Amino acid sequence: MTPSTVPELVDALLAGNRRALARVISHIENNTDLARPLLAALYPRAGRAHIIGVTGSPGTGKSTLVNVLAGVYRQRDLTVGVIAIDPTSPFSGGALLGDRVRMRDLAGDPGVFIRSMATRGSLGGLAQATADVIMVLDAAGFDRIIIETVGVGQSEVEIASAAYTTVVVEAPGLGDEVQAIKAGVLEIADIFAVNKADREGVDRTVMALKMMLSLGAPEKFQVMHHGRMLPVEIPQARTESHAWTPPIIKTIAVSGEGAVELADAIENHRLYLEQSGGRVLRDRLRAATELRMILRDYLLEKLLARTPEDVLKQTIDAVARREIDPYTAVQQLVDQVRNC
Amino acid sequence: MTPSTVPELVDALLAGNRRALARVISHIENNTDLARPLLAALYPRAGRAHIIGVTGSPGTGKSTLVNVLAGVYRQRDLTVGVIAIDPTSPFSGGALLGDRVRMRDLAGDPGVFIRSMATRGSLGGLAQATADVIMVLDAAGFDRIIIETVGVGQSEVEIASAAYTTVVVEAPGLGDEVQAIKAGVLEIADIFAVNKADREGVDRTVMALKMMLSLGAPEKFQVMHHGRMLPVEIPQARTESHAWTPPIIKTIAVSGEGAVELADAIENHRLYLEQSGGRVLRDRLRAATELRMILRDYLLEKLLARTPEDVLKQTIDAVARREIDPYTAVQQLVDQVRNC
Repeated sequence: MTPSTVPELVDALLAGNRRALARVISHIENNTDLARPLLAALYPRAGRAHIIGVTGSPGTGKSTLVNVLAGVYRQRDLTVGVIAIDPTSPFSGGALLGDRVRMRDLAGDPGVFIRSMATRGSLGGLAQATADVIMVLDAAGFDRIIIETVGVGQSEVEIASAAYTTVVVEAPGLGDEVQAIKAGVLEIADIFAVNKADREGVDRTVMALKMMLSLGAPEKFQVMHHGRMLPVEIPQARTESHAWTPPIIKTIAVSGEGAVELADAIENHRLYLEQSGGRVLRDRLRAATELRMILRDYLLEKLLARTPEDVLKQTIDAVARREIDPYTAVQQLVDQVRNC
Repeated sequence: MTPSTVPELVDALLAGNRRALARVISHIENNTDLARPLLAALYPRAGRAHIIGVTGSPGTGKSTLVNVLAGVYRQRDLTVGVIAIDPTSPFSGGALLGDRVRMRDLAGDPGVFIRSMATRGSLGGLAQATADVIMVLDAAGFDRIIIETVGVGQSEVEIASAAYTTVVVEAPGLGDEVQAIKAGVLEIADIFAVNKADREGVDRTVMALKMMLSLGAPEKFQVMHHGRMLPVEIPQARTESHAWTPPIIKTIAVSGEGAVELADAIENHRLYLEQSGGRVLRDRLRAATELRMILRDYLLEKLLARTPEDVLKQTIDAVARREIDPYTAVQQLVDQVRNC
């Protein structure tokens, strides 16, 4: 019998049924009627996993690195969930291909679960969907959850706020722009992996990172708090004496070299977060970010549902023809709907 | 006398005063009290410029390409505004450094205005700020506005929705992940530039792009419409007979080779959009996207302003401790505030 109701799906998922897990994720991705009740039922069961973000430019080989990192965890008898945020389109099938390539190494191991999620044009949707899928894998009992993202854009910073430990992957000789990008990721990096460490220029890359680190990056929390964020209480245990300096780990993902050291660095950071109160703080930041995202979309949906379609169309056309600016148009729209 | 009131700033900006322009942009970036009235006053004056998005992976040399493209426009007596969305941090000074490097070639030319904007951790803020700055440059009379973004993440798709013509820059030999990324950008690309065309492997890159194009990309509009977008009327003139196939232009930015051909391709696309009704359609999509972003933030701000800080803090803590899931928490918060 295939589980299909909310209690059946939840029970099967908690019992380790992988098909139920895949089904629950599909409900969430497709935002079906079961999505909300499933999330509400599973949310209290999550909170045990260590969540690791792995990010970096294209060509750094981070997919391969995630693969060998998962292998190290399996050797340590830890279960692993992998979420790959792929810039390939849901239409192109690229995400599926990515899964298949990964599966070669980890196929058939019930201790590993891999899921690709495609970036979509919709605003704000991906970060929240990712947060929900992380929570489901967490509730399903995976010990380590790895989220792999490409690039260092705004959405990556949002997704990084879901991770306890963020690994930024660099590689030697990726062109002149890479230098500039490093500065942006300093603020989210807990650990640096310099991959393809057998390549020429690896020492220059390590030196450049060390130099930037010595200049001092602002606290991760500042970045997350930028803009109109919600109020978050800082736990008392967090003091200056608990500062963390991101280690720089050289890796060669294709041969597996450095993967154990990388896993060790992640475990060190996990322990550091627990002892310093950093985990509690990141939980609060994650909660604040999620609440903000969900609240924003909830309010928008409510208002749009109450707005007649012809009023919306007329407003869009007036803004497109520049008869009214969008800020004034928004105010008029809200007033109009309120008086209905 | 330095212009400082809204009418003074608007008059000076429209008269071509570059200091007034810089001041207006600062007001918008810092969201001062003058930001809204300035945007409302300038919005009806915009709508003349052709807006060009230039995007691609790090290491493709797109900054240099933007530089030479601006040079070609200047030779044609067109004024150019450049907005660089840099993944470098506002703290690190990377954005400023980028400006200085660019300025070497175009320095002292009043027909060129360059502005870097840093990606920030705040949610949704950058895309809207970019749209506002584009509008201000448009109102200030720049003929061509180039927005340069890195990568192909979600935020880049949002920013691309502000452009009429999107140029995707590729380069030979950037690693195995690049192939996958191309699939994602197919949907936003109006023109491909294969830069560093003197490098080995350029023909392979061109062939790969041609193959992907022959598979057929979904319409750009589909991507923009993905998710809960607002209703947009499709203009009648837009029919299947007006299909556009993205041309592939080989360029060598450091020597300027191919820049004229790239500028010509952009002009062709501009004319195509005008004749096919595509410009009107993109104006409506842009208006819909902007309205959605502004409305969402407006509603969130209003609700947060009415929520007592201790209620917010308690809600965040309850979600962080997993006593309640964030979706249920949002519903409770909205009900609570409504009953106040």
